[in-house]
Amino acid sequence: MIDPALFQENERTAPTTDERKFVDVGSLDCECGKTIESVTIAYETWGQLNEDRSNAILVCHALSGDAHAIGWWDRLIGPGKAIDTDLYFVIGSNVIGGCQGSTGPASLAPDGKPYGSRFPMVTVGDMVEAQSRLLDHLGIEQLLCVAGGSMGGMQGLEWTSRFPHRVRKAFITASCARHSPMQIAINEVGRQAIMRDPNYNGGDYYDGETPSHGLSVARMVEHISFLSGEAFESKFSRRLQDKETFDMHFGIEFEVESYLSYQGDKFTKRFDANSLMYLTRAIDYYDWPGVSGVQAEFLFTSFVSDWLYTPAQSKELFELASGAGLTATYVNIDLPYGHDAFLLDAQFQAPLVREFLSG
Amino acid sequence: MIDPALFQENERTAPTTDERKFVDVGSLDCECGKTIESVTIAYETWGQLNEDRSNAILVCHALSGDAHAIGWWDRLIGPGKAIDTDLYFVIGSNVIGGCQGSTGPASLAPDGKPYGSRFPMVTVGDMVEAQSRLLDHLGIEQLLCVAGGSMGGMQGLEWTSRFPHRVRKAFITASCARHSPMQIAINEVGRQAIMRDPNYNGGDYYDGETPSHGLSVARMVEHISFLSGEAFESKFSRRLQDKETFDMHFGIEFEVESYLSYQGDKFTKRFDANSLMYLTRAIDYYDWPGVSGVQAEFLFTSFVSDWLYTPAQSKELFELASGAGLTATYVNIDLPYGHDAFLLDAQFQAPLVREFLSG
Repeated sequence: MIDPALFQENERTAPTTDERKFVDVGSLDCECGKTIESVTIAYETWGQLNEDRSNAILVCHALSGDAHAIGWWDRLIGPGKAIDTDLYFVIGSNVIGGCQGSTGPASLAPDGKPYGSRFPMVTVGDMVEAQSRLLDHLGIEQLLCVAGGSMGGMQGLEWTSRFPHRVRKAFITASCARHSPMQIAINEVGRQAIMRDPNYNGGDYYDGETPSHGLSVARMVEHISFLSGEAFESKFSRRLQDKETFDMHFGIEFEVESYLSYQGDKFTKRFDANSLMYLTRAIDYYDWPGVSGVQAEFLFTSFVSDWLYTPAQSKELFELASGAGLTATYVNIDLPYGHDAFLLDAQFQAPLVREFLSG
Repeated sequence: MIDPALFQENERTAPTTDERKFVDVGSLDCECGKTIESVTIAYETWGQLNEDRSNAILVCHALSGDAHAIGWWDRLIGPGKAIDTDLYFVIGSNVIGGCQGSTGPASLAPDGKPYGSRFPMVTVGDMVEAQSRLLDHLGIEQLLCVAGGSMGGMQGLEWTSRFPHRVRKAFITASCARHSPMQIAINEVGRQAIMRDPNYNGGDYYDGETPSHGLSVARMVEHISFLSGEAFESKFSRRLQDKETFDMHFGIEFEVESYLSYQGDKFTKRFDANSLMYLTRAIDYYDWPGVSGVQAEFLFTSFVSDWLYTPAQSKELFELASGAGLTATYVNIDLPYGHDAFLLDAQFQAPLVREFLSG
């Protein structure tokens, strides 16, 4: 059932060259009532926009993703792949609140200092509002498709209800209409780990040490939630880390411990703790307003072994959409990789997505 | 399916009066090769030892438990209950490495200072070795039964293989022969949260601030692992904490967040971070040597919704025991409370245990 070759590969590589473009989309009145004076969106595109501008696909990233969708979703995006850059004009953009080029808490406020704790509590709606201005900038009135998994799926859902006329299709994988209390709990433990790091300083730490230990622990918790028990067993079992017997200490003994520390500490090199705070809060708040007015055609996928974004949550989305008379497909895919599966799987998703886009 | 009355009650109360007794069981050569010069065991007993000393039941506690078994397992232990203190002589004792009266890292070493990081890495085998000396002290050669859940179940298993002639029966609930990598991962994140707290100081913090933030985060992670998704939904859903709308900040918004912070911070008042470090390490190391030489009769129970100590792990124990020709019963109980169920359930476990003990 587990394909080890596939499985060991699930570290998406960073772009070797930075292909990002940046656009200033003006000031944004956030749903919380505050205003960001000047919003920059970092984005990348692949393929060519056709003459009637009808082949654009917006790819929305998950919590730790970025604009480089062809990197983290390379199983699905590229020349000849399901999201075929020979056929479609594919757009990846970094969400606001993030830390990969779009305006976020580490960005400079009008006073020339980082926002830090002054950054507004952005919502999934705010992220999508900002993305819509990127589309305006690119001259795209209507998307052929919005696609995303996890937090990216929430943005996709929001697109269908906030801008019904701008979305023909939505591919939503491993996502949900709203977080369960267990999902909120997992995010909250991560936030608590950060907030209880003495370097956090209420979010204003940019002129000093960063709360890297808190961020690292938060990321470890996330990594546990991304895998299934079967995936843990397959990847690590009870193997020891470069030793035959226990050293009987609190350092690394098991391989799985090495994995967690490596993932946690690596994350602190590329991600801002405040962005984790803001983005997890945004998705915990999110509650899809539902299908009223929605016109999109849907493809939903979920994974049997995903206990974070459960199949029941995707099934609920499908039932809402099809119950309202919208064209919708739902496939629950039996792969053992846990939540990570939405990034790893092309075997099942690629043919589904290819047919969905061409239909 | 969920009984809310039962469910809200799962905060076991502390003893109002301290009934603990203490016995010095001498020096202990630990499996790691180090020696604890003088080991104290804190214990309580209920009921009367009969004339031929054949009615003793040792109850082994889980990670955060203590000698007061009649408190944390009051659904099963007491006059007229399944583990009937009118019929049996019931013994609860605190494990070594803990912090509820038995010798642990916060205890004073021979030099008059707390052990801290000097405390040996005790194992489940060491815990059981120390318990056997408590039985010697009480004049009990053979137990009618050893009973325990989770870490307590691991001690029970160790009893059956380390002292085959001293155990007639073993009731093992929500436990396993060895931790899966996912169980190790959850424990390791807790340890990392503690070790990355600046107050941890390598475990030597008794003359200063304690690593309470790290310990609190570790406990929050554990609480997530103790509940099922259904239990989270039933207890909290997405209800807000004393408010109608979001405050849009990083303070408490959802009830589940309040629960986690409350549980985490409350735990720091009664538990020592070093004990969490040592005890989680001990159970991560543990690997039951198996049924060779074992003579006990077994009752295994597990819970369908327990994703921490999974039914598959209990089933494996049952198959090992019955495969070796030992008398064994296994019941997988369909209750939605997650791992906590082993503490909460009397409906199914009480009749099983009653019959098991009287048979």
